[in-house]
Amino acid sequence: MSLTESTPEAAARAASIAARTLAVLPVSDRNEALTAMHDALLANKQAILAANARDMTLATQASQSGHLSQSVLKRLDLSRPGKYDDMLSGILDVRRLDDPIGKIDLRTRLDDGLELERVSCPIGVLLIIFEARPEVIANIAALAIKSGNAAILKGGKESSNSFETIATVIGTALEATKVPNAAVQLVKTRDVIDQLLGLDRYIDLVIPRGGNELVRYVKDHTKIPVLGHADGLCSVYLHRDADRDVAVKVVVDAKCDYPAACNAAETLLVHEDVLRTVLPAVAEALLAKGVSLRCDEKSKAALKESLAPSSAVLVQDATEEDFNTEFLDLVMAVKTVPGYPSASQSTTNGDSGSVSGDDTSLELAIAHINTHGSKHTDCIVTASSAAAEKFMSAVDSAGVYWNASTRFADGMRYGFGTEVGISTNKIHSRGPVGLEGLTIYKYKLRGHGQTAAEYGEGKGKRRYKHEKLAP
Amino acid sequence: MSLTESTPEAAARAASIAARTLAVLPVSDRNEALTAMHDALLANKQAILAANARDMTLATQASQSGHLSQSVLKRLDLSRPGKYDDMLSGILDVRRLDDPIGKIDLRTRLDDGLELERVSCPIGVLLIIFEARPEVIANIAALAIKSGNAAILKGGKESSNSFETIATVIGTALEATKVPNAAVQLVKTRDVIDQLLGLDRYIDLVIPRGGNELVRYVKDHTKIPVLGHADGLCSVYLHRDADRDVAVKVVVDAKCDYPAACNAAETLLVHEDVLRTVLPAVAEALLAKGVSLRCDEKSKAALKESLAPSSAVLVQDATEEDFNTEFLDLVMAVKTVPGYPSASQSTTNGDSGSVSGDDTSLELAIAHINTHGSKHTDCIVTASSAAAEKFMSAVDSAGVYWNASTRFADGMRYGFGTEVGISTNKIHSRGPVGLEGLTIYKYKLRGHGQTAAEYGEGKGKRRYKHEKLAP
Repeated sequence: MSLTESTPEAAARAASIAARTLAVLPVSDRNEALTAMHDALLANKQAILAANARDMTLATQASQSGHLSQSVLKRLDLSRPGKYDDMLSGILDVRRLDDPIGKIDLRTRLDDGLELERVSCPIGVLLIIFEARPEVIANIAALAIKSGNAAILKGGKESSNSFETIATVIGTALEATKVPNAAVQLVKTRDVIDQLLGLDRYIDLVIPRGGNELVRYVKDHTKIPVLGHADGLCSVYLHRDADRDVAVKVVVDAKCDYPAACNAAETLLVHEDVLRTVLPAVAEALLAKGVSLRCDEKSKAALKESLAPSSAVLVQDATEEDFNTEFLDLVMAVKTVPGYPSASQSTTNGDSGSVSGDDTSLELAIAHINTHGSKHTDCIVTASSAAAEKFMSAVDSAGVYWNASTRFADGMRYGFGTEVGISTNKIHSRGPVGLEGLTIYKYKLRGHGQTAAEYGEGKGKRRYKHEKLAP
Repeated sequence: MSLTESTPEAAARAASIAARTLAVLPVSDRNEALTAMHDALLANKQAILAANARDMTLATQASQSGHLSQSVLKRLDLSRPGKYDDMLSGILDVRRLDDPIGKIDLRTRLDDGLELERVSCPIGVLLIIFEARPEVIANIAALAIKSGNAAILKGGKESSNSFETIATVIGTALEATKVPNAAVQLVKTRDVIDQLLGLDRYIDLVIPRGGNELVRYVKDHTKIPVLGHADGLCSVYLHRDADRDVAVKVVVDAKCDYPAACNAAETLLVHEDVLRTVLPAVAEALLAKGVSLRCDEKSKAALKESLAPSSAVLVQDATEEDFNTEFLDLVMAVKTVPGYPSASQSTTNGDSGSVSGDDTSLELAIAHINTHGSKHTDCIVTASSAAAEKFMSAVDSAGVYWNASTRFADGMRYGFGTEVGISTNKIHSRGPVGLEGLTIYKYKLRGHGQTAAEYGEGKGKRRYKHEKLAP
């Protein structure tokens, strides 16, 4: 890693050349670089914490004068118990992951002695813009090296001292390894971002991590593909046959486990038939956690009837805008999904399969989510597998859940070992993105002098065999 | 399909709603729509050819007055032998392909009763801009429907009459199927393109098919991801140990089989040691096909010695710009790759493994391609598997070939059954893109009321199982 002082263009060109060396390094060399990084960060803990303390002093002053939020201050502090060790063990976790490079997922015999294979390879050069969290630089450097990608890093300015010290420590450690110095570069000043975003000739992918303002800015100012999410407007829909206990557990966790997270739920959709059966229990549990509810008319009326007057005070009227808002706070919008007479209700036998009336309600819930949501993660609470499967097929989101909290949308929880970010893109990678999302593939064709002109339908032409081979 | 008269925004919004219906149609319904399309195009052949004849009349006039090239005229003509039948059988070919939707490629038990799966699904709404080739509209409509994607189509203006008639025929046929009318829409006027390119709210992917001017224009005017290639600057490198016959076959096919194609070779790199052994045979074969050679100093000197004076006339001096040019014509740039004394040459035993001097030449060839090429398809001709493997690993192109013509870079030839286009992107899809490239995935999580807060490292917390299950 180097702390680059060169122009953005020179830095990006150097990264692009380093990427070619890194791309062909065997995994043993890439893993050795991670070991070197880990050991150097361990050996230089005091110097790094001292640099972090300088950042903290400045940030505390800024916070006291009201120029910096408490949450930024908290994220900045690398001396909090366990944080430094987590950073170190994170590097070893990445080292342990399977090599994402060189995986063959398609092999075809086009003809005798003419074999095609598709093999995973690094994307090239990543530009990663992230918040003022000092440990993230080590995590991202590890991910980039493991996946064979060069990376240009730009972190939040409040961490400047920490970043510079960490970059120097890592840079020195990498010098003894096969990873080229320009493979991971830290840029310092914010004003270089616009120039870097213009370098689509050298940079293959931008990953902005941070608030939606940053992500929107990046998307609006570059032709380079952007991986990430601007919004996380997740919804939970309580269907007609939602189990009350499941509904309470899922909604409370989805809203309250970490309200500032992108996978926290913001909207609660409630089937009309359960306004007075399931919703009150859910609302009571949310109110007990301090959540304000912004309700449409029907749900508000139902809650006014069932809640104690002291609780009902926290129930407010929703505006249309509330259903388009990512609150990132203890606030939840509640909307009623109209119920319809169910064709089979007169002959119901306890079967929880879908019926025509319920289908209409389900479709309205799905349409609401597809229109107002952010294609991140959405959940249905229902006892009906038919309703759940329909919801999961028709909701156009990266994560579609049945009776489980939206908070599970996370690379660690999915078992990916680590996470680059969560993508609401419609191409390449969707949902939590692990190492695999930092790879692409190439086609290798091995022949013996074959020409395309030899093959065809006509007389005397060879025919393709197109035999699938085991990868 | 509908021939839309609405505003671009209304058309895109309608496509986005239709996409949701199309996305959940079973493959039987999608295949039935293809059958209906096929039958209607067969039944209305005369009307369609009559419309095409009107396009041909106008285009012939434009061609005679010098406003239209012969090649556009040729592509426009749907009455050429076999062309109509090819269009019809193309639809049946797509129908026969495996359903790309609903494929599960990852299943993980996060915990008992909490299972994650990753399943392929359509991307959403495609905007496809293509040249004046009437049969392409049927092909693309078939691909979009099969992959469950809605599509907005804009074809070259010279085909207007053909397109409108085909769109009406297909639209009428689809009315009797489950595919919504707005799922495939044809827009007519060119001036709507800019507006459509601004509708990233509704359109998920743009696929421009046509010249690099069009592709560049599209890339410069949209935030929507673009799938395709602006350039196809492919190279063939003749290594020190290239077999002469293989070199002749591969280079002649790569250059001459179809010079206007994106997978035709434009640059020939020649190891210094074979300038007087392999190159003359290759050059003679190329010259016999009418190819002009633009040579650097060393290769030109070698050819002047070995070629007959009458042939040598076609050997010209290369400029630096020639090595950055996609000629799309019977022109090829020739560059010498310096040879170095090979460490093992004194003790050579016929083994064709790589040696240090050759490594340097190989690296120079690779560096030339990575710097001047367009990351499309590049080939090495060599007897050495070590050199070939190094070339294929280090050249950063969608296709990397050993002893095979670059012309094999094609979806049909790869056995994909059909092709949406060839991508030189570094994310999502690379190389020839088949139906698979029109899909993405979503994560489905099925639980029983689990919450993220239940899991963790602390006491009393549940641990994730992360058991891999067979997909």
